[in-house]
Amino acid sequence: MTNDLNKVLARIDQDLPDALDRLQDLLRIPSVSTDPAFASDVDRAAQWLVNDLNNLGFSARKDETPGHPMVVATGGAQDGAHLLFYGHYDVQPVDPLDLWNTDPFDPVIEDTANGKVIRARGASDDKGQLMTFVEACRAWLAVHGTLPVKLTFCMEGEEESGSPSLVPYLEANRDALRADLALICDTGLFDAQTPAITTMLRGLLGEEIIIHGPARDLHSGAFGGAAMNPARVLARILADLHDDQGRVTLPGFYDGVPELTDALRSQWDGLGFDADAFLGSVGLKHPAGEAGRSALEMIWSRPTCEINGMTAGYTGAGFKTVLPARASAKVSFRLVGSQNPQELRAAFRDFVRARIPADCRVEFIDHGASPASVMETSHPAFEAARAALSDEWPKPAAFVGAGGSIPIAGYFKSILGMDSMLIGFAKDDDQIHSPNEKYDLDSFHRGIRSWARIIDAVSRA
Amino acid sequence: MTNDLNKVLARIDQDLPDALDRLQDLLRIPSVSTDPAFASDVDRAAQWLVNDLNNLGFSARKDETPGHPMVVATGGAQDGAHLLFYGHYDVQPVDPLDLWNTDPFDPVIEDTANGKVIRARGASDDKGQLMTFVEACRAWLAVHGTLPVKLTFCMEGEEESGSPSLVPYLEANRDALRADLALICDTGLFDAQTPAITTMLRGLLGEEIIIHGPARDLHSGAFGGAAMNPARVLARILADLHDDQGRVTLPGFYDGVPELTDALRSQWDGLGFDADAFLGSVGLKHPAGEAGRSALEMIWSRPTCEINGMTAGYTGAGFKTVLPARASAKVSFRLVGSQNPQELRAAFRDFVRARIPADCRVEFIDHGASPASVMETSHPAFEAARAALSDEWPKPAAFVGAGGSIPIAGYFKSILGMDSMLIGFAKDDDQIHSPNEKYDLDSFHRGIRSWARIIDAVSRA
Repeated sequence: MTNDLNKVLARIDQDLPDALDRLQDLLRIPSVSTDPAFASDVDRAAQWLVNDLNNLGFSARKDETPGHPMVVATGGAQDGAHLLFYGHYDVQPVDPLDLWNTDPFDPVIEDTANGKVIRARGASDDKGQLMTFVEACRAWLAVHGTLPVKLTFCMEGEEESGSPSLVPYLEANRDALRADLALICDTGLFDAQTPAITTMLRGLLGEEIIIHGPARDLHSGAFGGAAMNPARVLARILADLHDDQGRVTLPGFYDGVPELTDALRSQWDGLGFDADAFLGSVGLKHPAGEAGRSALEMIWSRPTCEINGMTAGYTGAGFKTVLPARASAKVSFRLVGSQNPQELRAAFRDFVRARIPADCRVEFIDHGASPASVMETSHPAFEAARAALSDEWPKPAAFVGAGGSIPIAGYFKSILGMDSMLIGFAKDDDQIHSPNEKYDLDSFHRGIRSWARIIDAVSRA
Repeated sequence: MTNDLNKVLARIDQDLPDALDRLQDLLRIPSVSTDPAFASDVDRAAQWLVNDLNNLGFSARKDETPGHPMVVATGGAQDGAHLLFYGHYDVQPVDPLDLWNTDPFDPVIEDTANGKVIRARGASDDKGQLMTFVEACRAWLAVHGTLPVKLTFCMEGEEESGSPSLVPYLEANRDALRADLALICDTGLFDAQTPAITTMLRGLLGEEIIIHGPARDLHSGAFGGAAMNPARVLARILADLHDDQGRVTLPGFYDGVPELTDALRSQWDGLGFDADAFLGSVGLKHPAGEAGRSALEMIWSRPTCEINGMTAGYTGAGFKTVLPARASAKVSFRLVGSQNPQELRAAFRDFVRARIPADCRVEFIDHGASPASVMETSHPAFEAARAALSDEWPKPAAFVGAGGSIPIAGYFKSILGMDSMLIGFAKDDDQIHSPNEKYDLDSFHRGIRSWARIIDAVSRA
């Protein structure tokens, strides 16, 4: 099949100018999903994809939802490996518009110190990325008339507005969507030379605690000393959440937190992650998590507890001698391995309640929970894809973690019973969600070639 | 002299309707000092007092300041005890006006379940109070043609707007204002039956700490675990400020904190202070300060540390997985005895700095400091005034503490070298600074009689 693949890669190189034109067409559609003013544009972007996929020979359609439509398409081989591809065609708003150097919906190709880029809202997140996969399919089809795998597309138009229709849609279309493996193209490279398959995504548990003390704000002169100050209670609780070694003190917190395998540790060591540069980019020097862990472990494979917000009393300019009636904090936990969010929520609430004195009461607000996603990398497609990526890029691909959450992989697992490979070609400096978003032409070109290789490799795995 | 006094008291009773008319005249002048729109009204109130005191035979004048004028007057006996009387003729703003049941500047006499009241802005704070003293003088002068003491008035028009001109004025007029003792009428009764002389006022030290961590707010997924969270640092610092016994942990904090004398403890025990009712009025049950101290000690004679405000990260509705770049708190200490505010500020800053990890830095904002005021109750006027008050009211007078700060007494001591007796007749339910402020007619009437007695008693002490 190597010869088959080589022809596809050559076709990709030859077709790159046209592929760029097509991406620019799609980028010109301002498919901002969160703003109702752009609803018809979001629909137009969906229709653009449907038309393009139909032209390629897929059977494509818009599936309406209460929000924006799903673009669904099927095609490729009649048997063999069945892959589901996920990307999203909606984009973030562009505000503040005055910080853009060009029209966010009039894409331009620019020369930069790091090579050519295509600059527009959605260039990286996620139109440029999803088109790498579409273009890889186009080249395969152009050269061979078919694909070596069976393929389903499921592309969303609400990813940037909280995906309200996604779970109901997946639940209502289990049978139609289920495949052997999902490919999700919404992540990044490890660095400009090193591709990555994200195999570990931390989960997230969000809680808000509101500690109520006196019936109203009090004058700290008249009542100070005698009246319980809920801000003091809150500070004690928050301080108690970590020990001196940076470990989270909730009972049972580390149940289900696995140690890295030797194989993964060795891959990560090989990445040459520059912790100094990573922290230095935000003005820091010292990894702040558990003693004895590397910065990479802290963000990829270790759980955390963070105070995301807290407030009590008077926070304006100057001073007010108020003894506040309430104090509140938003606290989140990043979860790994098989940590159970519901058990940890209960443990957290017990921990807090045990520290509420007689004259206070506590109120909890549930801000959601999702477990970590840990991919089944024993599936042969993972090593096949890793080898394929390693063939394309200057440095070998690695299985990496991600500190944040990408819920779609969890939904594919829990609703469709399907593992996901998260592969993408974005760079840290793509400025997604910010003004002047861009996607490197190198990401786009090698991205298309990467998918062509992966389709080939997975079909033979 | 008893006969002299009795005639004065009889005159006060007889003149009460006219005294009320005069108070209502003064209350009709909207002397809101903080709002420039009322500047001419503030001046008019000052002129009203000057005219009234001149009519009584005092030599009265407005002394201009960069802000509102001081009303200064001298008169009374040529020799003997020399007293300085302080009150303020400015008032708080009336907002929110829609919560008033009557026009705040159209005083009315109302019958209530607890007796007649005069309702208007400033009725209690402080026009009603200062007029108790003026009316006592009027009665003495009407009956005897003179006073048994030498008297200086110093009445301020900026008390409700931070007294910006007060200290420079006192410093520039040391010789003219210095007397044997100051009488300050801006405090309250212990309860409706029990008059009080406030002899201990807590001082106040205000500090703001701002802990800076990362150069910008971070995504808690991308950086959580590896990046230091300043909110966590702040929580630890604030939690460390108290031990498990409710004591403040700053080194040296209790230096200069005296134990109550047996005499004072005995007086306080005799007050029958109802801690349950005091805390119950604001929805609390348990004195929250140092273990083993009574609630009255906690608010009158023990120092405190309170968090008056704190903020970090996202505090709006919902949730945001932000790792904040900074966290800040406003912290104040109520001081007693001879605690040194400047030494404690330094101790606090050392305490905080010792808890700032390598990747954070701390910024401090000085929000002022004043030491506690502890009156020299050994001055014979104190016991004389206490006896005089005890003669007038149903229950004996007590020397009491006050949790809040009244800076004027400290200034009289530090600038004029003069002790102060703080005596007033306000009640806890007078709603000062709030809508529907009132002053009980009983406070006004007995207040005038109280001053007549005190002038008599001090003249013979």
